[in-house]
Amino acid sequence: MMHIKVPATSANMGPGFDSIGVALELYNHLWFEEIEQGVEIIVKKEHEIKIPTDKNNLIYKTMVDFFAETGNVMPGVRLIQKDDIPMVRGLGSSAACIVAGLLAANHMSGCHYSREQLAQIAAKIEGHPDNSNPALFGGMVVGALDHNEMRHVKLDLPKDLVFAIMVPDFPVSTEDSRKVLPDMYTKADAIFNASRAALLVASIYAGDYENLAMAMQDRIHQPYRSQLIPDMDRIFKAAKNYGALASYLSGAGSTLMAVLTDDKAEVFQQKMAAYLKAIPNEWQLTLLKPDTKGAQLIAE
Amino acid sequence: MMHIKVPATSANMGPGFDSIGVALELYNHLWFEEIEQGVEIIVKKEHEIKIPTDKNNLIYKTMVDFFAETGNVMPGVRLIQKDDIPMVRGLGSSAACIVAGLLAANHMSGCHYSREQLAQIAAKIEGHPDNSNPALFGGMVVGALDHNEMRHVKLDLPKDLVFAIMVPDFPVSTEDSRKVLPDMYTKADAIFNASRAALLVASIYAGDYENLAMAMQDRIHQPYRSQLIPDMDRIFKAAKNYGALASYLSGAGSTLMAVLTDDKAEVFQQKMAAYLKAIPNEWQLTLLKPDTKGAQLIAE
Repeated sequence: MMHIKVPATSANMGPGFDSIGVALELYNHLWFEEIEQGVEIIVKKEHEIKIPTDKNNLIYKTMVDFFAETGNVMPGVRLIQKDDIPMVRGLGSSAACIVAGLLAANHMSGCHYSREQLAQIAAKIEGHPDNSNPALFGGMVVGALDHNEMRHVKLDLPKDLVFAIMVPDFPVSTEDSRKVLPDMYTKADAIFNASRAALLVASIYAGDYENLAMAMQDRIHQPYRSQLIPDMDRIFKAAKNYGALASYLSGAGSTLMAVLTDDKAEVFQQKMAAYLKAIPNEWQLTLLKPDTKGAQLIAE
Repeated sequence: MMHIKVPATSANMGPGFDSIGVALELYNHLWFEEIEQGVEIIVKKEHEIKIPTDKNNLIYKTMVDFFAETGNVMPGVRLIQKDDIPMVRGLGSSAACIVAGLLAANHMSGCHYSREQLAQIAAKIEGHPDNSNPALFGGMVVGALDHNEMRHVKLDLPKDLVFAIMVPDFPVSTEDSRKVLPDMYTKADAIFNASRAALLVASIYAGDYENLAMAMQDRIHQPYRSQLIPDMDRIFKAAKNYGALASYLSGAGSTLMAVLTDDKAEVFQQKMAAYLKAIPNEWQLTLLKPDTKGAQLIAE
């Protein structure tokens, strides 16, 4: 059996809409086995959204497409899924499925595409590389997409950074959350995000944490999506009060993310958990370190 | 006599509008001396735009404002100016004057503000920090501006990068060049620039030169300002053909900039100079290394 684990990913990171993302130590585990024909899918962990166990399963569909496009014959597949990444919460669970499907199909087909090639394919499937890149490479990845090509750089995050995911009981679909965005932005807002995105990358490289509060500001999506996320602004404010360097909306939400240094982790965990318990929507707090390796093919 | 030299700076660098800039080994030299009263200004190098030798001189005005705001009494000043930075060409000649004035006034007044404090003041005077930061700190500097505060990170550029300035015989005023910009941008364009600005910073850190062609793309100002710069697009194309990694409009123009590695410098210089000679507007090509130190107070 081939065992693949794929990390959760948190995209945008404030100003880096559709561009910047980070991998976290929270994983979907998948086991693949060739069978004579057809598809058998066993879901080991149920979510409130039912994971399809037929040909509509996203991992399976990704494999089928990969085999078709590379001109190979798809074998039958047995797939066991244990998904620890919350679904429809802005933590890259779809990208994790696509990446898992690509890695499995790449291996089974004998194509032996490089991870770089798989990253190009994943970015095309998703339409943006900010989840698929960190899911494949680990760390924090900056990517930009052209018609024909995706370019990216992986940053190794400073070791003392911790990411606090705050996951509510409600989902936000990427589709819904894209609908609330305007078609046009002022020049000031366009300049604002470009300068913050540049400052974010430079500050992470330089380890200049004092900059992060400004560098993680955003005017492209967060001001519009806050209507979909009750209490977003006051949770951000609380996170700051309890020691976070900065906060942002993870992907399209609904997860909110706070970034802090590990010396603040214990106090933050206590106070923030108490705060979240006292407001609606059953926000769950988990502190995670960044994943540094990306998806791993563990054993066969 | 106090001798100050201030480097030329090239702002925007493609996507980093009002945010990213680089200092270059091309300098204005200023000599300051206290005199009993009034102002005496001697201009050692004439430009096609006359440098004021009275109280309207930008360096002198900056000094007067600094003394007034810090509550000090301004002495009389003799100033000798030798300006090698071309004026009104998008190479930071105004920022260089402001930085020189601040450094001189800071020293003469005995205020002893830090360079960081001077950077905050300069960014406020200019309204954007992308020239004043590299003029003060050297290297490539990423900055973002809030109502109250400017945050910045200095990157040390890889040693093998060379900047080729191509300066035409016509000026473009910042005012004119701001007028041609639209008020609103599409979401796609806003995302485009933020992703490129992030990729630019990451690629410079990582030394990933292959990315620069994409990372220096821009949709905020270059497509609109090209109408003010005859031959911009074909000069960019020629630069690419002759070995440049990427090209951009320096500041608000009129200077065009090509970025290349030093192993390509000799061929580039020959071929590009020949190309520019054959088109109108007397484009002058000069290859420069980045300045790494920023403005220097050399001797008194």
